[in-house]
Amino acid sequence: MLKVDLNCDMGESFGAYTLGLDHEVAKYISSANVACGFHASDPVVMEKTVSILKENGVAAGAHPGFPDLMGFGRRNLNASPAEAKAYVQYQIGALWAFCKARDIPLQHVKPHGALYNMAGKDYALSRAICEGIAEVDDRLILLGLSGSQMRKAAADVGLRFAKEVFADRAYEADGSLVARTKAGAMITDEDEAIARVIGMVKHGKVKALTGEEIEIEANSVCVHGDGEKALAFVQKIRAALLSENIEIAPLAQIV
Amino acid sequence: MLKVDLNCDMGESFGAYTLGLDHEVAKYISSANVACGFHASDPVVMEKTVSILKENGVAAGAHPGFPDLMGFGRRNLNASPAEAKAYVQYQIGALWAFCKARDIPLQHVKPHGALYNMAGKDYALSRAICEGIAEVDDRLILLGLSGSQMRKAAADVGLRFAKEVFADRAYEADGSLVARTKAGAMITDEDEAIARVIGMVKHGKVKALTGEEIEIEANSVCVHGDGEKALAFVQKIRAALLSENIEIAPLAQIV
Amino acid sequence: MLKVDLNCDMGESFGAYTLGLDHEVAKYISSANVACGFHASDPVVMEKTVSILKENGVAAGAHPGFPDLMGFGRRNLNASPAEAKAYVQYQIGALWAFCKARDIPLQHVKPHGALYNMAGKDYALSRAICEGIAEVDDRLILLGLSGSQMRKAAADVGLRFAKEVFADRAYEADGSLVARTKAGAMITDEDEAIARVIGMVKHGKVKALTGEEIEIEANSVCVHGDGEKALAFVQKIRAALLSENIEIAPLAQIV
Amino acid sequence: MLKVDLNCDMGESFGAYTLGLDHEVAKYISSANVACGFHASDPVVMEKTVSILKENGVAAGAHPGFPDLMGFGRRNLNASPAEAKAYVQYQIGALWAFCKARDIPLQHVKPHGALYNMAGKDYALSRAICEGIAEVDDRLILLGLSGSQMRKAAADVGLRFAKEVFADRAYEADGSLVARTKAGAMITDEDEAIARVIGMVKHGKVKALTGEEIEIEANSVCVHGDGEKALAFVQKIRAALLSENIEIAPLAQIV
Repeated sequence: MLKVDLNCDMGESFGAYTLGLDHEVAKYISSANVACGFHASDPVVMEKTVSILKENGVAAGAHPGFPDLMGFGRRNLNASPAEAKAYVQYQIGALWAFCKARDIPLQHVKPHGALYNMAGKDYALSRAICEGIAEVDDRLILLGLSGSQMRKAAADVGLRFAKEVFADRAYEADGSLVARTKAGAMITDEDEAIARVIGMVKHGKVKALTGEEIEIEANSVCVHGDGEKALAFVQKIRAALLSENIEIAPLAQIV
Repeated sequence: MLKVDLNCDMGESFGAYTLGLDHEVAKYISSANVACGFHASDPVVMEKTVSILKENGVAAGAHPGFPDLMGFGRRNLNASPAEAKAYVQYQIGALWAFCKARDIPLQHVKPHGALYNMAGKDYALSRAICEGIAEVDDRLILLGLSGSQMRKAAADVGLRFAKEVFADRAYEADGSLVARTKAGAMITDEDEAIARVIGMVKHGKVKALTGEEIEIEANSVCVHGDGEKALAFVQKIRAALLSENIEIAPLAQIV
Repeated sequence: MLKVDLNCDMGESFGAYTLGLDHEVAKYISSANVACGFHASDPVVMEKTVSILKENGVAAGAHPGFPDLMGFGRRNLNASPAEAKAYVQYQIGALWAFCKARDIPLQHVKPHGALYNMAGKDYALSRAICEGIAEVDDRLILLGLSGSQMRKAAADVGLRFAKEVFADRAYEADGSLVARTKAGAMITDEDEAIARVIGMVKHGKVKALTGEEIEIEANSVCVHGDGEKALAFVQKIRAALLSENIEIAPLAQIV
Repeated sequence: MLKVDLNCDMGESFGAYTLGLDHEVAKYISSANVACGFHASDPVVMEKTVSILKENGVAAGAHPGFPDLMGFGRRNLNASPAEAKAYVQYQIGALWAFCKARDIPLQHVKPHGALYNMAGKDYALSRAICEGIAEVDDRLILLGLSGSQMRKAAADVGLRFAKEVFADRAYEADGSLVARTKAGAMITDEDEAIARVIGMVKHGKVKALTGEEIEIEANSVCVHGDGEKALAFVQKIRAALLSENIEIAPLAQIV
């Protein structure tokens, strides 16, 4: 049976600040990327988040970001590969402790925001991240953009790699994401978005912004839980996948 | 053969800021309390610190503190026990990742500064810390003040506890440390300090500030590596212990 | 004509995190306590907040807190008076810059959370805060709890002091606030709360938790803007004050 | 009489971490760039630093940086111009408070590290910084790289600009600094460095890395106070300038 993972960022609250409908979205996804205190979250939030994952049987992944809480980790920071490696190891370890305390495994690592984007285009950075992950635990799966430098680095380091696709983003002909600043970058029609996901998962194909059909592999679909609308879409895409006889399963059962 | 551990805070540098003669002091101690990024240190410093520990065969311990970099974790913060527990788990995990990456075990946990002092007097706080440690790894040793609430909490939670004594601090008749603000709180004469340590380790006794001899157990002696003078004292106390046929060994070989 | 100020905390968002209905509440209050980046807020939020104040003709006040973003400045921190003084001066200056850039005056300073509570009971801390304010600008008004150490320190330093009362809090017989942990600490009935405020403003009296009527001066009433319910209450209390022929005016017109 | 300013970064300590020989270097310079708590420093350090400036008659300048304490503000961060503007205003205000409290004027603003480098090449960023400064106080002087985008933006905004030269850095033929990664980037011979500074100040010329003599204007020479060697060099360059009948004077007397 065809399988795909649904992944969502979770645990992005911080102190008195609440973000995301974590209790709700946890019911519909198979893997969660848990913020680790650098771009979002704090130890108390992480403890709660891991508890939610355990209750809902969602697989846990670390979501390490740059140390930029003020910018939510979304701003490029020219940290060296060695710095990025240490940041990733630190954050994986921090989340590992909460998983260990709740007796659930740590399944994967997905770099967050600017770190994800920079690593996708920078082999040296991706390599450092992959080495950092492998040194801590070489059974961890790297979740990254299908067709990015992260994929190549993971292969070179011997790390399992899960290819992520986006329901709400357009693709360039080379398989990269269309920059958000470009017209047509976002797929705003929900039915179209779902049709595209089904196509990517079932047939490994998607129509690029330039019109041609390109090949794309989809181990995991990225969804969002930061509002009622996003949550409704998660339910919709989940139902659509199931109705196509596609099983929703955590990464560890797929790659 | 009589054994005692020599423990020292290490890895307290941060970014461009350097603190402590870590490369030097690592040659003379058996256990290190490694700062974990809350009151001091950062991921790059932690990576380097764990490498120094590995090179010198020093056992690694987490040194979790309050999230107060500006105050170096020395200021009381009325965090709840649940918050303190999460802070300790987070920091243990962060250090664990670097130990795992360098393939050295994590031996112990010693709360830092204000967290150490507050926990020593507050059972609920100590209990939360102990439960936090045990949930992550119940083989970890808690290093804390001989005769404090930490000892009681560790016993109740089933965590191994190592009793720490101080060479440079005077004791009250009840075994607690004399407050730094009180006259006579610090033992400034090095020979007297060493004689007191030998007495505590060999005979389990020390003279309290009030004059009477009190019982005290010493599994580990706290030393400092934050200057040339401190370093010279570490060498001196080490030599004195060895000349008394006391073996210097990491905590895991003692408790 | 009788006058009273309505003050509300504003600008408590941070980075990607939004808190408070600032655009709404600004329509109904006369003075705002603006977070300054230590317990909440960041420079971008402060710039926006000061713009909102200008648009709505609300007087600006600094709301300095402890450097504890993770705890929203609500946790006691045993910073020294000298440290607290420097923290207050830093935060006043930071907000001053945005007021200067938008050409509105800085009217007052109200310590936040744990700093407010600690200073209320600790003369040395209050004194340091008052000296810090006066050194920067001795025309600034200190807004603090009616009957607290802040009032005494302000008088001793020669700083104008505005007495704050709370609509939703019960008072002890000595004029201090009933601890939140105590039964009856919160006034939950809105009509009762409003009647109490009217009584405090018009007659300088309020019924203490213990039953007797105590004297209390009210220059400013603290309201909240952190939700729809709070906002509705602000409108209600404003209307009630106006219907009693009490003018709502910023602190600078009152003390 | 020919005049030049000697500027030095000061107040870069943080909490328990000490950096720089501020008490010493203050005796020999005319302007100080004071860290403002984003890339270095804290309120207590700022208070002390401003006191040192006052004692030594050194003119105070704000040294705003990116919010990157871990990287000491040396790492490029793609903050938007609006964000950078708010960061600069916040930090100017914070320092202003300490200057006001000590009754010394705030003379200038010099962006720090990555912000300095990025602004030097990015007109939009420089423009936002200049507008931010001018909004707070249009009498403030911007101290920046001679021949950079900062100079152009300052002119467009109507802000006084002071041209800074470096004793220890080589220049490209276009007047920009040779990248540190390039061979020959640093002038390591002290006598050569001093001769170059004298040449720049007296004749407005310096030999570029490529061999030709280029024109360069020098209102201020950047020196360092972060070690005994740096300090000795400051004394040496000061003596050399004085022996050439060049007066050392703060920026406000020059531009």
